Order: sequence, then structure tokens, then C-alpha cells
Amino acid sequence: MSLLEDLHWRYATKKMNGKKVPQDKLDYILEAARMAPSSSGLQPYKIIVISDKALLEKIKGIAWNQSQITDCSHLLVFAAWNGYNDERVSKVFNYTMDERKLPHNTMDNYKNNILSLYEPLGQEWQAHHSAKQSYISFGLAIAAAAEQKVDATPIEGFIPEKLDELLKLTGSGYKSTLLLPLGYREDENDWLVSMKKVRTPKEDFITEMTIEDAADFNEAPMEGSIGNPTKE
Amino acid sequence: MSLLEDLHWRYATKKMNGKKVPQDKLDYILEAARMAPSSSGLQPYKIIVISDKALLEKIKGIAWNQSQITDCSHLLVFAAWNGYNDERVSKVFNYTMDERKLPHNTMDNYKNNILSLYEPLGQEWQAHHSAKQSYISFGLAIAAAAEQKVDATPIEGFIPEKLDELLKLTGSGYKSTLLLPLGYREDENDWLVSMKKVRTPKEDFITEMTIEDAADFNEAPMEGSIGNPTKE
Repeated sequence: MSLLEDLHWRYATKKMNGKKVPQDKLDYILEAARMAPSSSGLQPYKIIVISDKALLEKIKGIAWNQSQITDCSHLLVFAAWNGYNDERVSKVFNYTMDERKLPHNTMDNYKNNILSLYEPLGQEWQAHHSAKQSYISFGLAIAAAAEQKVDATPIEGFIPEKLDELLKLTGSGYKSTLLLPLGYREDENDWLVSMKKVRTPKEDFITEMTIEDAADFNEAPMEGSIGNPTKE
Repeated sequence: MSLLEDLHWRYATKKMNGKKVPQDKLDYILEAARMAPSSSGLQPYKIIVISDKALLEKIKGIAWNQSQITDCSHLLVFAAWNGYNDERVSKVFNYTMDERKLPHNTMDNYKNNILSLYEPLGQEWQAHHSAKQSYISFGLAIAAAAEQKVDATPIEGFIPEKLDELLKLTGSGYKSTLLLPLGYREDENDWLVSMKKVRTPKEDFITEMTIEDAADFNEAPMEGSIGNPTKE
């Protein structure tokens, strides 16, 4: 199956049957999520994997009692940085430079540039920005699950502050952003499985534009460039 | 190739060679983006496709002069709703109900629930929330491009307010969120192509948790459920 066929196969499973997802498939899905691109390669998020029923029961209670949370095989909790700072960014860049056998200071200019861009935007903006990166990874986890014929339900319907408290994320520098229960559909009790998949019609979703459609815009181009952070 | 192999093949292409992406591959990538899941199925975003060189030149000038913007075959501009309101949400739900041959009022309770959840969070939160949905779609477009062996560069480095002005998004209810140039790598002039792909090590990216690791948390579960919006 192609990715597009996988995306047609998948749906936001409403009722799961409790069957276990094999470890190799779980690992594959997590690995796809880990390979996701992110802004400046910072990957400002992580994934918590939960299959303990007692803990899942507590999470269900702060997630609108959605049955997939306890009927799934594994619940993935995505959690993102609550903001950017020198320490966090340096840790990632230093690791990257080590892996590429380049000196740590190779990316200092680039690092200072992004920190000075993010700093004035404030902590709330930064938390949204790092949360956004986790959505790319989430999309790839969903695609990987579909490829492996594992069902998954993208869930935003939970109380993040309470989940952060339960999972001891509060004060850890992370905030929960998304839930992804993985498991298998129970067709006969799933009201959504037989419904038509509906998406915005192509003609509303995609617009083509040329210079003729654009505004009269004569601002001077920006100076400088992002360039090659390993060469600056 | 599996999705995971495709994700290893891809990288944030820094230098493209100007070769055209065939229409069928472009359509495939756009279709994968269109099939992405989104919160409540609202798909609060759209994609603008640009291949006009004069327009791409102007965009490059407000995007740190990144060469991929003019060396690509097509530039995808993702743009998301600047907020939620009854009119926008009703339009999507009514279309969904038409496609599913259900009466428009089927989802009224569900719609009122989400609007009353989002309203107090304010316009800025709402804009971030709808932007986040576009990141899922963006992730799937990147995966689809990789599957088609089309290179793509995820780009957040541009000035959204200026791009909105140029593309006449200002005042349209949409804000630009992301850029994705599609094209083909020019290996010999791309400093990144031969660098090791580095990601957060597995042991830092993935944590397993059980009830033993969680906080002592004894709050009463939420009342009610999200349930079946087509049956409420």
C-alpha cells in the first residue's frame, strides 16, 4: 500500500478491541516519530509510552472518558518543551556536532540568532512553537501506524494541566500536547468506521497563485541569509 | 521503500537544481496533505501552490534569502485560520453531514461544545491551535514527497506578516504558517546532504511510565463524554 492508500485506510478509531500491538510494530511507529523533522532540528518534544491499565484509567478520567485510552494497546503521550533557552538548545546542538565530528562552537552564531528571535516572543509563544513541532512527529506516527495496519486515534481532548500533574511533567520543562492510543479497531462497535471519510474539497483546499494574484509589494529583500550553520 | 526508509532518505534539502516535479507527483503530495487528520475534522488550513518565479523571488526576499524558494519546482504555502467561529465551523460540519447524508443539526451539540471551549481561550490561542493542525498535514506532505523521491525543505524561517501581505492573506481569515519547497537536490552544492542525520537518542526521546512513576492523583473522573457527535 502507498502512503495515500494507508491514509485512506486509517480513521480516528472510536472503539478499540484491547488486542496488543507487537513490540516491533510499536518500535517502528516510535522510530518514525523520532525521525520527524523539526525547527532547527531541535526536536523539542518527547514521547511517553503507557500501557499500564491503572494509569490509563486515570488518564481516561481527565480525557472526556474516551474509551480508546483504556482499550488501546499502548498510549503515546507527546510532550513538548515549555520554552527555549540556551541550555536546552546547546545540549541538542552539541550532541549534533559531536555526532558530525565538528566543534561545539560551529553552531554558536546560528544558536544565538534563533535564541534572540525567540526570546522577545515570550514563553507562551515558545511553548506553542515547540508544541507545533510535536504535531509533525505526531503526523508521522499516525502514518507509520497506518502503514503497519495499527489503528490510532489522534486526541487533543484532554486537560493538559491535569495530565502534566499526573505524569509529573509539571515543573519538568515539558507540557503534554497530544495523545495517540495505538491498537485495533472493533468494527462492530465503532460508529465512525463505516462513515464516509470527508475532507475539504480539493478546490477549496488548494489554491494556485502567480504574481498577478499577489499584492503590489515592493519591500527591499532581507539582508543576510540563514546560510550554512556548520560553516559560520 | 517503507515510510521509515523514506524518512531516512529525506533531509532538509539546502540546494535544489530547478528540475520540475511532474504534475502527478505534485498532486499526490497535495492529496496526502489533504487527507491529514485534524482536530474535530475541521481542517482549519489550506495550501497555496506557487511556481511563478517572479512571485517566488519576492517570497525569498522575506524568507532569509533561502535559495530553495526560487530553485524549487513548486512552493507550498500552508495557511491556517486565524481563529474559530460559528460560521467557519458550521460550514465544515454542514458539508460533512451532507456527504454523510445526515441532517445538518446532527453535530450542533458537538459544535457548541467546541466553540464554548475555544472562545474563552482567545483569538491568539485559536490561531496557534489551527496552525498546529497544519503541522500534521505538513508532516504528511513531507512523508508523501519522500515516498515519491521528491525533495522538500520544511521552512519556518520567513516573516509571516509580510508573506500574508504579499499573498493577500491579511484580512482573509488565514495566516501563513509554513513553507514547503518541492524539487530535487543538487548534491554537489548542498552542504547538508552528506552530513549525518542526527536525532535525539532513543533513550532520551522515549520514556515508559507505569502507575508507580505517576503522581498520587485522586481527582474524580470528568463527567460526560465526547461520545458520538452524529448521535447526540
